[in-house]
Amino acid sequence: MKEQYPAEHSREVTQLANRLIENGHEMEVRVYYEDTDFSGVVYHSNYLKYMERSRTEWLRHLKIFHTDLEKDDSAFAIHRMALKYGPPARIDDLLTVRTVLQKLTGARSFLRQEVLRTEADGSEVMLCGADVEVAFINHGGGAKRFPDDLREKLTGSPDGMYPLGGET
Amino acid sequence: MKEQYPAEHSREVTQLANRLIENGHEMEVRVYYEDTDFSGVVYHSNYLKYMERSRTEWLRHLKIFHTDLEKDDSAFAIHRMALKYGPPARIDDLLTVRTVLQKLTGARSFLRQEVLRTEADGSEVMLCGADVEVAFINHGGGAKRFPDDLREKLTGSPDGMYPLGGET
Amino acid sequence: MKEQYPAEHSREVTQLANRLIENGHEMEVRVYYEDTDFSGVVYHSNYLKYMERSRTEWLRHLKIFHTDLEKDDSAFAIHRMALKYGPPARIDDLLTVRTVLQKLTGARSFLRQEVLRTEADGSEVMLCGADVEVAFINHGGGAKRFPDDLREKLTGSPDGMYPLGGET
Amino acid sequence: MKEQYPAEHSREVTQLANRLIENGHEMEVRVYYEDTDFSGVVYHSNYLKYMERSRTEWLRHLKIFHTDLEKDDSAFAIHRMALKYGPPARIDDLLTVRTVLQKLTGARSFLRQEVLRTEADGSEVMLCGADVEVAFINHGGGAKRFPDDLREKLTGSPDGMYPLGGET
Repeated sequence: MKEQYPAEHSREVTQLANRLIENGHEMEVRVYYEDTDFSGVVYHSNYLKYMERSRTEWLRHLKIFHTDLEKDDSAFAIHRMALKYGPPARIDDLLTVRTVLQKLTGARSFLRQEVLRTEADGSEVMLCGADVEVAFINHGGGAKRFPDDLREKLTGSPDGMYPLGGET
Repeated sequence: MKEQYPAEHSREVTQLANRLIENGHEMEVRVYYEDTDFSGVVYHSNYLKYMERSRTEWLRHLKIFHTDLEKDDSAFAIHRMALKYGPPARIDDLLTVRTVLQKLTGARSFLRQEVLRTEADGSEVMLCGADVEVAFINHGGGAKRFPDDLREKLTGSPDGMYPLGGET
Repeated sequence: MKEQYPAEHSREVTQLANRLIENGHEMEVRVYYEDTDFSGVVYHSNYLKYMERSRTEWLRHLKIFHTDLEKDDSAFAIHRMALKYGPPARIDDLLTVRTVLQKLTGARSFLRQEVLRTEADGSEVMLCGADVEVAFINHGGGAKRFPDDLREKLTGSPDGMYPLGGET
Repeated sequence: MKEQYPAEHSREVTQLANRLIENGHEMEVRVYYEDTDFSGVVYHSNYLKYMERSRTEWLRHLKIFHTDLEKDDSAFAIHRMALKYGPPARIDDLLTVRTVLQKLTGARSFLRQEVLRTEADGSEVMLCGADVEVAFINHGGGAKRFPDDLREKLTGSPDGMYPLGGET
């Protein structure tokens, strides 16, 4: 698994993007030694780390902080995750992690997350895509309804649902 | 997320089990510092590492080795993974990782993997369960049919399929 | 870095050893995918994980548990570590992690830890060796004297020092 | 270890710095879930990952790429590392990793690397400092002299040594 390496972006010095997009977030990550395994590519579970970074940075943009949640006996916890892997990422790759909120119910959020690489011809290839169901829980692990302020930060409205008019 | 800790197994000195079971494998893992995160429980992507260890040890029992595969321009690569998370594992927990081969086609294997904890009352709780589709590929990433000797190791027969009589 | 692979132990099914030795502890670890990087060998920081596992299992043998310490506003924290790397470990390697207590003062323990591989000719090669200074601290990070019961577990005597008669 | 959290930078949205400094490199890293352990702080071996990221980005600035080295039967490998730990980093912290080349001989480079946090009062605190000796090796693991072009990239001169006039 050590083919020729085409991507010019692997040789650039760059500041990594980290920005809000419509209903979500996008950030860039660089593939380092720590991310790869002996087969020459990114170890499969490390895509989940990239996705968590994007969820965290998205929440930071929305002024939602893990430390505040913890003080409030709350946390987000992954409940389900359906992963599909495409071509692998390699050392030095510059990847994009895209997170889009698909649905918000009383105590769950449903996200679509993708780790993408832009190829030499400008096309985006999906290296790992995930449908992610995140539960809002208390420290005992029980489900918890999103408080109004958190719901407002996530949807723009204290009684907001995703998609608009969706059921709880 | 720092409740009382009930499980006695967390205080035992033990040799970790690693054994074949019917159509699969079972091994024990101990939860160490490295596996946990600041919320006090095992970081969600680390269950995938536990599962990979069990797949590797299962293959070792069947005399299938990653280094041999690599020399033969072959590798197993995760293609899909559907994960469901239950209660979290904590530091010092003794966990069981169970791997069962569900189906084998021409170039894919389908596994059921579970990370379990035996509670004080003897019941098993599933902390993370996964339906895993593993592709057999060459170094270029293309699908590859299982060679006869590998198929025989996995199913006991050079033209074996799982379940018996299954289609390719 | 992908030479021929000689070591037969990489092909064995084995239960991993985990035992007390004089003034310390010895355990075996298997190298999995997760431990390696794209250069084909174990990523340098992962030897520190192996060492932590051995320290934890050693403490478990001595009936010292991280969760008890935490409830008692205590923790062990690495203060210094001097690492020397030898030949690298590779996928499937069976390694030995050896931990020996060198010295115990009022609030510090000094350990010698080595990650070793037994070669085909029976000789042991040191892949990573570390002189480790561990501080005993409270949750604020301040130094804390070892309580008598902990000191007794570590040295066999409530006022025990290492080496015998050493200064505090 | 879950004190009040003072640092405002933990709540900022920011693009992470990544830049050359005199004789070295400086980059910012954000602490994510994946970096922490159940004691509430960054796991000790993860500082080594931060340091490796800075070494890699420094080399990228100098047009030195791991994939080119690999094709040329070369690699950098950590030979020794002397680590000293200070106060711990916590979730959401914005850290600075600073890498300074101290000395370059025929086949070794000696780096000083520090992971720092800027406190509320503007002072920098060292969370982890390391004196790092990096060997230049071939794939068999043997020492290798730096080729002229690599030496020029690292020092600005094809026969450059660090410090100026230093011995090989």
